[in-house]
Amino acid sequence: MDDTPPSGVADGDAALAAFRRSIDNIDAALIHMLAERFRITQAVGQYKAARDLPAADPAREAAQIARLRRLAQEAQLDPEFGEKFLRFVIEEVIRHHDSAKKSHTSSSSSEVG
Amino acid sequence: MDDTPPSGVADGDAALAAFRRSIDNIDAALIHMLAERFRITQAVGQYKAARDLPAADPAREAAQIARLRRLAQEAQLDPEFGEKFLRFVIEEVIRHHDSAKKSHTSSSSSEVG
Repeated sequence: MDDTPPSGVADGDAALAAFRRSIDNIDAALIHMLAERFRITQAVGQYKAARDLPAADPAREAAQIARLRRLAQEAQLDPEFGEKFLRFVIEEVIRHHDSAKKSHTSSSSSEVG
Repeated sequence: MDDTPPSGVADGDAALAAFRRSIDNIDAALIHMLAERFRITQAVGQYKAARDLPAADPAREAAQIARLRRLAQEAQLDPEFGEKFLRFVIEEVIRHHDSAKKSHTSSSSSEVG
């Protein structure tokens, strides 16, 4: 690469690039965590379907939301966002189970974790 | 707690509880990662606003989406979900900057990372 000219803009670009490298690392971690979470909810769905356990568990879901709101607050993240994020992930879990239902007629579950 | 009766259901509950402990650990990690990501995008927003750098960067966003889709695929996560997730997070970053704009009339930015 060229030498960085000692201008404000070039300094800016270097600082911005550093911020972005951190964001990219965090995003990679998030994607891998989400992949692992879906591996587990998939296993839970199969587990429950095999035992005819009820797919949904509203008490569990309420406890998850309350906990994530509290964790978000502790991490200085908007608790509304903590809840919105969990609902976003749950929707995807349901979507996965719906696709599974289409391929396997009788062994699906909408367990959301 | 009572002794666990040696029934199939009780075995089921123990296995389900173990799955759920893993899900809860992953969710806590996700929330803390997201909190850190928003700390950085907030700093980026302030940084760009102070230097009158353009808030949006479509080329950066396209590169992020392509990379997250690739990472998702490698992790056996639906690439569509990888992209949907990034867009969900970006929407929240924009919402943060919009709220910031309301409190500080001239120093906002919709930098999304």
